[in-house]
Amino acid sequence: VSEPAQRRARVTGTVRVVGSGLLGASVGLGLRGRGVDVVVTDASRTAAQLAVEYGAGRAPGPDDAPALIVVAVPPDATASVVAAELAAFPQATVTDVASVKSAPLAELAASAADLGRYVGSHPLAGRERGGPISARADLFIGRPWVVTAGDGVAPERVALVEALALDLGAIPVDMDAADHDAAVAVVSHTPQLVSTLMARRLGDAADAALGLAGGGVRDVTRVAASDPALWVQILAANASVIAPVLRAYRDDLSDVIDALERIDESGSRRVLAETLAGGNAGVARLPGKHGQDRRFASVVVLIDDRPGQLGRLFAELGELGINIEDVRLEHSPGAQIGIVELAVLPEALQRAVDDLTARGWRIAG
Amino acid sequence: VSEPAQRRARVTGTVRVVGSGLLGASVGLGLRGRGVDVVVTDASRTAAQLAVEYGAGRAPGPDDAPALIVVAVPPDATASVVAAELAAFPQATVTDVASVKSAPLAELAASAADLGRYVGSHPLAGRERGGPISARADLFIGRPWVVTAGDGVAPERVALVEALALDLGAIPVDMDAADHDAAVAVVSHTPQLVSTLMARRLGDAADAALGLAGGGVRDVTRVAASDPALWVQILAANASVIAPVLRAYRDDLSDVIDALERIDESGSRRVLAETLAGGNAGVARLPGKHGQDRRFASVVVLIDDRPGQLGRLFAELGELGINIEDVRLEHSPGAQIGIVELAVLPEALQRAVDDLTARGWRIAG
Repeated sequence: VSEPAQRRARVTGTVRVVGSGLLGASVGLGLRGRGVDVVVTDASRTAAQLAVEYGAGRAPGPDDAPALIVVAVPPDATASVVAAELAAFPQATVTDVASVKSAPLAELAASAADLGRYVGSHPLAGRERGGPISARADLFIGRPWVVTAGDGVAPERVALVEALALDLGAIPVDMDAADHDAAVAVVSHTPQLVSTLMARRLGDAADAALGLAGGGVRDVTRVAASDPALWVQILAANASVIAPVLRAYRDDLSDVIDALERIDESGSRRVLAETLAGGNAGVARLPGKHGQDRRFASVVVLIDDRPGQLGRLFAELGELGINIEDVRLEHSPGAQIGIVELAVLPEALQRAVDDLTARGWRIAG
Repeated sequence: VSEPAQRRARVTGTVRVVGSGLLGASVGLGLRGRGVDVVVTDASRTAAQLAVEYGAGRAPGPDDAPALIVVAVPPDATASVVAAELAAFPQATVTDVASVKSAPLAELAASAADLGRYVGSHPLAGRERGGPISARADLFIGRPWVVTAGDGVAPERVALVEALALDLGAIPVDMDAADHDAAVAVVSHTPQLVSTLMARRLGDAADAALGLAGGGVRDVTRVAASDPALWVQILAANASVIAPVLRAYRDDLSDVIDALERIDESGSRRVLAETLAGGNAGVARLPGKHGQDRRFASVVVLIDDRPGQLGRLFAELGELGINIEDVRLEHSPGAQIGIVELAVLPEALQRAVDDLTARGWRIAG
């Protein structure tokens, strides 16, 4: 009863979502779950139709009078679509969800757009895979949602965008566009490039070397699977802010290379030790728990690696009435057992462990 | 009945584990679980006692005559401890688990040690946290265990080390020491440094910026929390192999920095796009679990998002005799459908699609 879906939405009236990719469709799903009338549209008719079928909203009608418009299109298109929406709906407040804020704002400021109704924003949420079929109503829960309101915007329009964030379970964070772009350069854009450049080294590696890959390199390179077309736009729009961060990174890297090349000279191991300790200190600054989805608890089941075992496991979970929020299978050709990691609601954890154990399943840990 | 814990161990006689940190204690726990007599010792009496209390083995006795000795000490100490064990137990086969192989081997070759009884090895397993209390019997399950046997070693001694790996659920992988060190330079040591250097940038970031950190930067910097004292030893021991990989990384990084500094010049966006696409290609080469695994084909099934649906799907897959190599569940509270991505052997793909379709399942794509 205290779930967001059961509480009344703060936003009222119709919300128009322009762009039905991952973010747009997730906004639609989340608002629809709170009873909000959502219109969803997209330059691609297929994408728009898929989002409607997926439950993210309805198709636009001739009499739509949205109070709030959420522009969820790629960064390069953001300013022009925001300008078009401001012109087409002269009463509406328009926000966008692009991951860079200064560049679209500068482009809008140079246009004839009515900036008194525009409130830029950026929800810090995403997944490796895009598109409406990856959308989820809970995508924004607990995530920061940066709101970069200009000076000339009426407070009630800013409050409407903050209400949108709150309705989706996100946490509104007030920042100016330049501070936002400096922040994401460090915590998002540089990590993306660092990961991408590491993944490129894997391209040159021997097959046998890749067979030794473990969790570390998988974590470091996970975001390297991101969409190049989207990321070129993001990186280009924030290029002047990212470059100095990368130069500082390169300076440190060169110190490490020098130390490795002269490893037996005095001071070289000290450079490595101080670099590693600096990494410890940096990662310790990240707020909160690391890597865990704190909404769910984890049950690890060891199964024989034979056809039918997973089926039996999931069939019995169904019989036990235990809903699985997520599943990960660790399956190694050559190993005799597989490891199935099940995410369940915390309140279901003890019962899941007890019931599975009683039925003879082997639970790890 | 086919679980490893119920099968008889391949190794016979007493196994002596020298070093009771994460790896040594996990070896002890795993072997004890299979009924093997394990002796555990450590330069630190406290650590040794803790490992015994934790169930990783018993304290040494005056009449111990181990057939196999597992040296699980930090890289810098590995060669001298291996040499001491070879001398103290003139019948035993001695292996080590250090994550670099050429440097200890060179050090041993320069000593008076009996290399005919030494078989270097390296289990690719670990956790962020070390020490015996982080140990687990299942640490090695499904992981590669590299065995770097020298030419002059009797086959039955190599087989004994392979038996150790198999008893612990790992997969023995035969490599020479140089190939091993080149492999881990790319899939372990370079990712560690890339992560560490990224984490150092977080040290300079504003608090507000860190508040925007999401899953991407957390993944990239997770291994930056690793122990500096251990990693200085690892990096120093493999310095000459890591340095060229880092130089290639730096060359690519400089190309990206140049492109960002001249983002509006022709060709700059192309450099970014090709870099990002190269990262996609590199990460796709990682086997298993991660993005696309080229060994497997993918079937995407759309299911109603209700308890029991997953059970029904996997039960039917079992009836159809289709083995699932990997599974990913896209489960969205608020969405009306869930997406199950199944990885199957390529030769099973068409039959899986046909059979599931015939039974009324909705296949995407």
